[in-house]
Amino acid sequence: MASNKLVLGLPKGSLQESTFELFRRAGFKIKGTSRSYFPSSDDEELDIRLIRAQEMSRYVEHGMLDAGLTGLDWVRENGSDVVAVADLVYAKQGMRPVRWVLAVPNDSPVRSVADLQGKRIATEAVGLTRKYFEANGVEADIEFSWGATEAKVPELVDAIVDVTETGSSLRANNLRIVDTLLESHTQLIAGRDAWADEWKKAKIGRIALLLKAALAADSKVLLKLNAPGDRLTQITENIPSLHAPTINNLADEAWYSVETVVDESVVREIIPDLKEAGAEGIIELSLNKIVE
Amino acid sequence: MASNKLVLGLPKGSLQESTFELFRRAGFKIKGTSRSYFPSSDDEELDIRLIRAQEMSRYVEHGMLDAGLTGLDWVRENGSDVVAVADLVYAKQGMRPVRWVLAVPNDSPVRSVADLQGKRIATEAVGLTRKYFEANGVEADIEFSWGATEAKVPELVDAIVDVTETGSSLRANNLRIVDTLLESHTQLIAGRDAWADEWKKAKIGRIALLLKAALAADSKVLLKLNAPGDRLTQITENIPSLHAPTINNLADEAWYSVETVVDESVVREIIPDLKEAGAEGIIELSLNKIVE
Amino acid sequence: MASNKLVLGLPKGSLQESTFELFRRAGFKIKGTSRSYFPSSDDEELDIRLIRAQEMSRYVEHGMLDAGLTGLDWVRENGSDVVAVADLVYAKQGMRPVRWVLAVPNDSPVRSVADLQGKRIATEAVGLTRKYFEANGVEADIEFSWGATEAKVPELVDAIVDVTETGSSLRANNLRIVDTLLESHTQLIAGRDAWADEWKKAKIGRIALLLKAALAADSKVLLKLNAPGDRLTQITENIPSLHAPTINNLADEAWYSVETVVDESVVREIIPDLKEAGAEGIIELSLNKIVE
Amino acid sequence: MASNKLVLGLPKGSLQESTFELFRRAGFKIKGTSRSYFPSSDDEELDIRLIRAQEMSRYVEHGMLDAGLTGLDWVRENGSDVVAVADLVYAKQGMRPVRWVLAVPNDSPVRSVADLQGKRIATEAVGLTRKYFEANGVEADIEFSWGATEAKVPELVDAIVDVTETGSSLRANNLRIVDTLLESHTQLIAGRDAWADEWKKAKIGRIALLLKAALAADSKVLLKLNAPGDRLTQITENIPSLHAPTINNLADEAWYSVETVVDESVVREIIPDLKEAGAEGIIELSLNKIVE
Amino acid sequence: MASNKLVLGLPKGSLQESTFELFRRAGFKIKGTSRSYFPSSDDEELDIRLIRAQEMSRYVEHGMLDAGLTGLDWVRENGSDVVAVADLVYAKQGMRPVRWVLAVPNDSPVRSVADLQGKRIATEAVGLTRKYFEANGVEADIEFSWGATEAKVPELVDAIVDVTETGSSLRANNLRIVDTLLESHTQLIAGRDAWADEWKKAKIGRIALLLKAALAADSKVLLKLNAPGDRLTQITENIPSLHAPTINNLADEAWYSVETVVDESVVREIIPDLKEAGAEGIIELSLNKIVE
Amino acid sequence: MASNKLVLGLPKGSLQESTFELFRRAGFKIKGTSRSYFPSSDDEELDIRLIRAQEMSRYVEHGMLDAGLTGLDWVRENGSDVVAVADLVYAKQGMRPVRWVLAVPNDSPVRSVADLQGKRIATEAVGLTRKYFEANGVEADIEFSWGATEAKVPELVDAIVDVTETGSSLRANNLRIVDTLLESHTQLIAGRDAWADEWKKAKIGRIALLLKAALAADSKVLLKLNAPGDRLTQITENIPSLHAPTINNLADEAWYSVETVVDESVVREIIPDLKEAGAEGIIELSLNKIVE
Repeated sequence: MASNKLVLGLPKGSLQESTFELFRRAGFKIKGTSRSYFPSSDDEELDIRLIRAQEMSRYVEHGMLDAGLTGLDWVRENGSDVVAVADLVYAKQGMRPVRWVLAVPNDSPVRSVADLQGKRIATEAVGLTRKYFEANGVEADIEFSWGATEAKVPELVDAIVDVTETGSSLRANNLRIVDTLLESHTQLIAGRDAWADEWKKAKIGRIALLLKAALAADSKVLLKLNAPGDRLTQITENIPSLHAPTINNLADEAWYSVETVVDESVVREIIPDLKEAGAEGIIELSLNKIVE
Repeated sequence: MASNKLVLGLPKGSLQESTFELFRRAGFKIKGTSRSYFPSSDDEELDIRLIRAQEMSRYVEHGMLDAGLTGLDWVRENGSDVVAVADLVYAKQGMRPVRWVLAVPNDSPVRSVADLQGKRIATEAVGLTRKYFEANGVEADIEFSWGATEAKVPELVDAIVDVTETGSSLRANNLRIVDTLLESHTQLIAGRDAWADEWKKAKIGRIALLLKAALAADSKVLLKLNAPGDRLTQITENIPSLHAPTINNLADEAWYSVETVVDESVVREIIPDLKEAGAEGIIELSLNKIVE
Repeated sequence: MASNKLVLGLPKGSLQESTFELFRRAGFKIKGTSRSYFPSSDDEELDIRLIRAQEMSRYVEHGMLDAGLTGLDWVRENGSDVVAVADLVYAKQGMRPVRWVLAVPNDSPVRSVADLQGKRIATEAVGLTRKYFEANGVEADIEFSWGATEAKVPELVDAIVDVTETGSSLRANNLRIVDTLLESHTQLIAGRDAWADEWKKAKIGRIALLLKAALAADSKVLLKLNAPGDRLTQITENIPSLHAPTINNLADEAWYSVETVVDESVVREIIPDLKEAGAEGIIELSLNKIVE
Repeated sequence: MASNKLVLGLPKGSLQESTFELFRRAGFKIKGTSRSYFPSSDDEELDIRLIRAQEMSRYVEHGMLDAGLTGLDWVRENGSDVVAVADLVYAKQGMRPVRWVLAVPNDSPVRSVADLQGKRIATEAVGLTRKYFEANGVEADIEFSWGATEAKVPELVDAIVDVTETGSSLRANNLRIVDTLLESHTQLIAGRDAWADEWKKAKIGRIALLLKAALAADSKVLLKLNAPGDRLTQITENIPSLHAPTINNLADEAWYSVETVVDESVVREIIPDLKEAGAEGIIELSLNKIVE
Repeated sequence: MASNKLVLGLPKGSLQESTFELFRRAGFKIKGTSRSYFPSSDDEELDIRLIRAQEMSRYVEHGMLDAGLTGLDWVRENGSDVVAVADLVYAKQGMRPVRWVLAVPNDSPVRSVADLQGKRIATEAVGLTRKYFEANGVEADIEFSWGATEAKVPELVDAIVDVTETGSSLRANNLRIVDTLLESHTQLIAGRDAWADEWKKAKIGRIALLLKAALAADSKVLLKLNAPGDRLTQITENIPSLHAPTINNLADEAWYSVETVVDESVVREIIPDLKEAGAEGIIELSLNKIVE
Repeated sequence: MASNKLVLGLPKGSLQESTFELFRRAGFKIKGTSRSYFPSSDDEELDIRLIRAQEMSRYVEHGMLDAGLTGLDWVRENGSDVVAVADLVYAKQGMRPVRWVLAVPNDSPVRSVADLQGKRIATEAVGLTRKYFEANGVEADIEFSWGATEAKVPELVDAIVDVTETGSSLRANNLRIVDTLLESHTQLIAGRDAWADEWKKAKIGRIALLLKAALAADSKVLLKLNAPGDRLTQITENIPSLHAPTINNLADEAWYSVETVVDESVVREIIPDLKEAGAEGIIELSLNKIVE
């Protein structure tokens, strides 16, 4: 029976809500109260654990979890040996791409990491930061920060290594970015043992496929329109879709139905052009999932 | 003119919001403030009244309402002679199926209703409970409970008959279920007189059809995909839909478009299989209504 | 470069949220904090300013804005000479049609504007009100109201000219409507100079097309069904759509697929009829945009 | 040990929060989550149960509770034989005095209970209502209402007996009060057995004293001032306190300090007078408890 | 009877809540829903109207209100001839002192009002601004702003006259203050006719006294302590109170009780000194009202 | 000038709000937005920094802060050499006493730390835990936990060392406490250098005095009453106050006024006794500060 259970770690904390929502859109209903670490799901093959993103890769590596959702940054911070199954970069949810940056006060003389020889650096990612300083041949006093890292320069430390999404919090604290250590995003990772198990590998693969299908649907829409036969080519050339549109004869043989999935971001450009080109009955629909 | 008005009772209280939402999805816009008992709607043939679910069947039976939405449990509790037009079982809304159960403290010696001879029972459904005890040939002192029924055992009474959805509230109060008296769900009921009126019967029937169409859409999605001709059979066999999928030739004659409505709960199983089988451009869309 | 930027005014205040949402559905992501007057967007050709609806037309007329979203009422109040590009009447958002009315206390002897000779009138739209009284040949003391206009009769003034949507606030204050000065709705307006600029005119036109496409989708849905060949005509005649439905042969030649966009408000009427007429697999989907 | 425990019922539901707050001000810290029926307190002599106000007197009468807080109305409705220990009428909390009234639609011809012979009456207090109709020699069909009683006239019943505090809900439903059956307020009640137990009686008495001390402090304040000897009499005569004020010589022998507890509602009248009469350094302080 | 009613205007809108709270502390309970303009109170001599602060002085001047609470700024803007009865400057409430300032963009060359000859100015206080420009002999185009005034420079106008409390909103909009036109605070104003009526004048005076007593208590506390006779002088000298402390012999003749009202802001300075000087049992109490 | 500034660290995060409130009651108004780390205060001698409690002692030890508010636990965890100026144990605020405990699953065989030889322990306080295991001569694998520590047993680790206030979170996770490593509470700490500076030491001392005065007032109240001379001794003997009550002759020589500060928790015991003993006019008042 053990081979039919996948132990899956999901991030506890601020990402929990949006992770549950992502899984819901992928087809898995997960339920959990804010206090419990053992949410239930409607998939009996899953055993779900809520774990802090920072520690996920440690427990996936040691086999206590078969797979987990975490950030590339914490995989690197922990130096964990795990399989990166899928990159999950998405815009609508909370788990957007982030950067780990070296930052100093706006008026600091520091221009590059080389200027930080012998200085004090605060960070929540001591591992990442040590590797970066070593790679750059700079010796510095790197100390663990429990948070509020941005407030520590210049009074308490000389520079910080901190995570940022839009940079607005850094700007609000009058900090200047000196270098980027790592660009990170959410990853689905698997343990080496789980990956070697055929059933678990297949199960993880299906989950990855569905998560990506749900994410892809966030930024794409279905466009449908009717085109007169004599302008069909002109109209379909206007549509920047990866695949050829689905074209279909209508009962009225002078007209074709055209259906295609396009990026939501180009719709505002092409709809006016399509109408201009003679398309009629243009409609746009939202998608739940898309597998191209 | 009277024959063109249907007096419809909707449940006042915690279900009001979700009932209005269900009707909205069925195509009826109902508006009402939290204080008013006479909501307005955009259907001039409807006269809507907000009534407590517990009393609905009493007034439908007596003809003050033509039809109403209530629970099967309260129809039984009141012993009302009404027409059960449609069962409305739905998952996303608040009106989920519930059970009326006989419960005792975890450590009570009571194992079946027979052990309750001469004991005191508290319940909000005195009618249901009396019938059940009579049917089992057990005499007990059954008293009306104004609520907080779970807290009454073992100090105030020996057992309770209470409604439960998931059983979690019973567990939290250290209660054990001894027997189930009734499984209940929401029903659309009609009065005998209204049902004998042709216009009213047709109107109630159309409302029932639309409510069921909206509820059905909750748990189903539209799946579309393109299939190469040589794998069409294999692919469509993978899809567990009641009806045969809608299959269509594409302009590119080697490909077919396939479109079908499936249960949302199976999508996570079949999408990976469909892709494996050669399907392309798989997309999933939400539905507002479905009439099969 | 200047010719490739359109300066667009959007209403600051209670309509801001719903305006951003409307643009989002039209395909433009606008971001702005509640404090900032310069929201950013994902369209580099747009420079967006948040301006009070009351002043919008003034700045569009003077060329500080190329175009703007405001109410017809404030265009008239300001007597601005601008181009009315598109009427944006929509039900789901906050910017519903409104009326400016002349109102008096329920028990006032005033029956028409002629009865207000020499009286005091409070209003937020002094310009509109003056023109109306002049057109009716009535002289009155018209004073600017900073708000709470309804509370001023009868103690402080004899009548008011105020804006109302449903009339419920007037009723709550025991006021009676004597006359309607103006029915107003949201408009996209453009300045004369911007409209004479080919690029700006085209850009404004595309925005108008997309806004209307998003609004139209609010009240329409996509209906799909399968029809047996022998009842196809009967079924399609049942569907009150502007355009003929898209009809398509299915692989099973005895059946046709029918697809059409209809008003959401008629769906509850036609679905029961369609089923009665032999249609199967009737489904309804929501739309994001529609260009007919 | 049993004689040193008092089992006390507090009302579950909307009054729970304000009851806990009242006990806190009386000196008892009670803690309970919204789900639990067994709150804990910092008084080891108390065993607290949360019970619906409607049922409280039933369980106090039968001895399952030693004492309880409930409304006089529900004591009467249940016809319970209990000791009324203290009337707790208070303004700041939720448990204000209420009236049970017989009400009919504004336009009903009913002018007195006598006009209701043979009619249908809905009420949550069937016991009270039956006694009232019997006392008036009127026969009517009195049925239990699960709530939303006000909405039932005139369509479902001819009159109602309902509880009201300010009458505003009745007015909003266009109802007219025909008669008042009972004025009710919160009471601390005790069971006959508990009252016969010396320790329990003393304990209940102390609780009553402290609850009344906290309630009394709601509407009273401490007023302090300095008065010159020659106007002392004139000043103290101005102060409408039950007890003579506490008057004290100051080090400066020409002056006296005056201190007294007065009704908060008279302060706005007497402070200007006291200042006029020559008082200085008038200050007002809030009180937590007062025992006169 | 008319002479026993005072018609009092209170500001509608954001200040309403804090004004009601101030009156409550002064001894008047005012109740009103957010929609009503006619709140009720527990003082039968008061008829309260909610009016926008901007218009208050206009209606007090014309005698429709006997007295009102508004800002000095709006009295000046309207140029109203009214009696300023009391200045109500308070820190804890919303009605803090504000300044009307002339502001320009940080990088504007404008340094004084003289640099604005022929420029465009936006403001909500057109009257104040016109007087100020005239007094400075500068001609400018002053236009009414409906709000969002800060966002109008530099694109729409050259300078603004706006109200500010802390200046933070100006700074957030990169504006620089050029001059201050007026410092304003809340005032209790009375009409000339009401002031000439003896009863009304007395009533307004009592209200003013109580409002000031409540405001004064915000920033003062009662300090009590016991002092040994031999250090009494030293201790009392340490206390910066307007009036001499109330000193009293204790039963133990070696000790005196000292009681005094002091500014809350000095307490943190003097308590350590008092203890150092030998005071014992130092306690601090809050005050509701104080009339010195 | 430097000698007149005290750099004070306050805890950032969940305690921030309650710390500001404590200082406000002590007489210092501190203002800060949730994003800023540099709150302002009304005491110009203070420079306040918001720092995580975990790091506070590190920066106080190194002299970057003169003093700080943190927990004894984090001082010990960091092994910092600082001066413990005052223990601030208080009940009403968030900073209650806490315990660091070693916990295992309820059904674990572990009974004492000795049973954990060679096991894995997760904790947020790695320093404290290492010292504890060393002191007990037990070797274990102690790893840093980023939070959600309770969820890690038994799947991820064998035992945890975690902080608990009431133990309820441990119980909810089915954990059993094996041992207590440390009882901790809030402390005001100072750096060695600051403590050696006379001005800073005095300033810190005054702050400590005022914080303790505010905390003491949380659990004490002022009791006042009048006593007849012949029962004065009996009455005052009933009052469990540290100091003798302040007794005073009244103008009416047969009566004395008695005033004393007592623990709030005894009030409910003594008020009934005092009344019994003949006391009159017993009132209880809240205190802001108390220095005994």
